Amino acid sequence: LTLLEGRHLVAEAIRTHQRLETVFVTAAGPPLPVSDHWIEIVEVTGPVMERLAGTVSPPGPVAVMKIPEAAPPTTHPTVVLCAVADPGNAGTLIRTAAAFGYHVVFAEGSVDPWSPKVLRAGAGGHFHTAISVIDRDPIAQLDAADLTSIALVSHGGAVLAAPVEGVPAVLVGSEAHGLSTAMVEAAGHRVTIVTKPVTESLNAAVAGAIAMHRYATR
Amino acid sequence: LTLLEGRHLVAEAIRTHQRLETVFVTAAGPPLPVSDHWIEIVEVTGPVMERLAGTVSPPGPVAVMKIPEAAPPTTHPTVVLCAVADPGNAGTLIRTAAAFGYHVVFAEGSVDPWSPKVLRAGAGGHFHTAISVIDRDPIAQLDAADLTSIALVSHGGAVLAAPVEGVPAVLVGSEAHGLSTAMVEAAGHRVTIVTKPVTESLNAAVAGAIAMHRYATR
Repeated sequence: LTLLEGRHLVAEAIRTHQRLETVFVTAAGPPLPVSDHWIEIVEVTGPVMERLAGTVSPPGPVAVMKIPEAAPPTTHPTVVLCAVADPGNAGTLIRTAAAFGYHVVFAEGSVDPWSPKVLRAGAGGHFHTAISVIDRDPIAQLDAADLTSIALVSHGGAVLAAPVEGVPAVLVGSEAHGLSTAMVEAAGHRVTIVTKPVTESLNAAVAGAIAMHRYATR
Repeated sequence: LTLLEGRHLVAEAIRTHQRLETVFVTAAGPPLPVSDHWIEIVEVTGPVMERLAGTVSPPGPVAVMKIPEAAPPTTHPTVVLCAVADPGNAGTLIRTAAAFGYHVVFAEGSVDPWSPKVLRAGAGGHFHTAISVIDRDPIAQLDAADLTSIALVSHGGAVLAAPVEGVPAVLVGSEAHGLSTAMVEAAGHRVTIVTKPVTESLNAAVAGAIAMHRYATR
């Protein structure tokens, strides 16, 4: 189970028929959209809502949601998060993936995709894409799904502008260290987003977004 | 004056010769790079550092920096933040602007570009670009600088792929409401990053980054 916090997320979960168990509301809170599926609604006081919610202030709502079953990667454009630890970046990558029609794989010790902070940054993107979690050897599973793995590296890769054959799996590394050497070497392609030499690197969510946009099918 | 927090920011400020007045360190903190310009260094205890720093935990360092003079926009690629209130988005846009060689304009009630949270998300980008603050009528000032203003709109604009003549000024609106109608109408161009119809919009920092990358001169 996980916790959805705030009217936008809870309303989007209801609209897309997520499996909600309980929705906690306050008397002062905004009305929720009418729904045709069964949800338990519990009214609580402001102080109780304050204890329930970690990322938003009262008046709520907060909903308990069953996390969807994760499926392995398929032959579909995909972004792969490798040790992405920042919930804001992870959520933004999910939001962007949903916007550009990508699936999402969480690999190599990334943050939990269903934690409340990631859900909040995802802004409903979680409900519009497929999210998998892979514990080991993601490249082998991407290869098995017939995906073309593309490692984003801050220096030394091919320029992003060049086209890549096949269905892309864009690999995004951690903020602090980028992708591991093993991942970079195992990937089918190494690609660099050209920046001014003064800069160390782009934000992980920004780099992933620019690459997803480049390889998106329209 | 503003406050730089954490070793990365303070070291980058020293390296790029920002006007630091005082650097607060703890005995347990990391060593700072040697500098050839005068800076007062004050050693404080852990609890004092905890009171000084808002965005990082001890062991520090924290530095007091003189905010550089803001200059009006010039004929140079520019990103314009219009009512961007989230410090993380504002900082990420500055970081991305620095990476792609853009100047930055804060307009229409955006967050303070020099607040500690924006500096932290900027990851040193503040020291590698020019940042202006415009209180009123930004389009007139962009026009005066002979910039081609490009309003990013979630629907109905020209597809981003099309080239635009002149030196670009990319206008990014607020997370909640996008650009104001007045700004959209006053801009020279209206451009949309095509997404799947399920999605409301991209994150503001992501949209700005994709547009800056598209119009960057390389």
